[in-house]
Amino acid sequence: MRVLVPFAADAPKTRLEPVLSADERAAFARAMLRDVLAAIDAVGYEPTVLSTAPLELEEPISAPVVVDDRPLTPAVDARLPERSEDDPVAVVMADLALATPDALERLFAAGGDVAIAPGRGAGTNALVVRHPEFRVDYHGGSFLDHREITAEIGADLAVVDSFRLSTDIDEPADLVEVLVHGTDRAPASLRERGFELEADDGRVGIARAGNATSS
Amino acid sequence: MRVLVPFAADAPKTRLEPVLSADERAAFARAMLRDVLAAIDAVGYEPTVLSTAPLELEEPISAPVVVDDRPLTPAVDARLPERSEDDPVAVVMADLALATPDALERLFAAGGDVAIAPGRGAGTNALVVRHPEFRVDYHGGSFLDHREITAEIGADLAVVDSFRLSTDIDEPADLVEVLVHGTDRAPASLRERGFELEADDGRVGIARAGNATSS
Repeated sequence: MRVLVPFAADAPKTRLEPVLSADERAAFARAMLRDVLAAIDAVGYEPTVLSTAPLELEEPISAPVVVDDRPLTPAVDARLPERSEDDPVAVVMADLALATPDALERLFAAGGDVAIAPGRGAGTNALVVRHPEFRVDYHGGSFLDHREITAEIGADLAVVDSFRLSTDIDEPADLVEVLVHGTDRAPASLRERGFELEADDGRVGIARAGNATSS
Repeated sequence: MRVLVPFAADAPKTRLEPVLSADERAAFARAMLRDVLAAIDAVGYEPTVLSTAPLELEEPISAPVVVDDRPLTPAVDARLPERSEDDPVAVVMADLALATPDALERLFAAGGDVAIAPGRGAGTNALVVRHPEFRVDYHGGSFLDHREITAEIGADLAVVDSFRLSTDIDEPADLVEVLVHGTDRAPASLRERGFELEADDGRVGIARAGNATSS
């Protein structure tokens, strides 16, 4: 199985702008990428980063980087199986900071012509494609579109039930999940920048250097 | 194993006030409760509803109802195992509208002295208690507190990785998840009231009778 990790190297994580500067967002996005690559590696696969721009990965993480500056959908489509005897292709988003080897192993082992780990808001956070006719459509509500596409081509769909894989890190409120459930570099990256959990009014939010951001 | 389903019968789901009237919130909360009870029943357990007020369940769902008007923490604590030979006790929240028998079976079979399915924001959406010294603390950030309590009493903690069990339905944005992944009465209850999914600006929200509520 080939495992692709799409990464927006040019303008990562813009929705975190309220709490992180551009440089900080870039560093945090790379920390999440490193944790995702390490989790895939721990399952026993060699991931390939599918990046929108050239990218130097820092030691100890290394992975081949393929640059494709097209939007996500055509960049992924160009790498899906075209014949039934081709290797399956897995696509795992680079901002799944809670991903663990166990969660990924459940996805990789799920079977089905297509296996999807949905995200909140009907997203597709990770998938495995074994069917040669399946093509992706990552524009909004992609889980619904992907479900429809599998039905149209007569493919089996396996839906993988994982909180960890359902949690992509996009907005300030999502940082709580990284601090509670993150595995390595991503939570460390936040803590180094002064973020910590803060219980406030019965809910848990994040605080930074005395500056609270409720979730 | 005894399975408790706490239910706030007196003022359910106040954070859905922007999109549902008080009567509608009460009906929707009962629809979610019915789906949760049906999922537990399908695993082979007879759930007990732990309600803050007397409650009539409508056919075809029936379950014993125990009324306890104390806050959630003491009401649950009073029913946890007190000796190691007591039956384990599972506590499954009534607003886990995406719960399926498969997801609950993974929780019930997870092992550990305590097994928790965390919710977003460090919540505890469902748990199984086998250890006689464990007591709950549902006030904010309860997953963190429960993790600390298990460590203090030297108990093993199993964390169950389930998107379905991590999704409690509290806020208008959560209704998207019910329409996409809900199983039976809860999504039907929303559709009967005119709610549908709406793709807008690349994200999926909900709309009602021409009145859009973005998620």
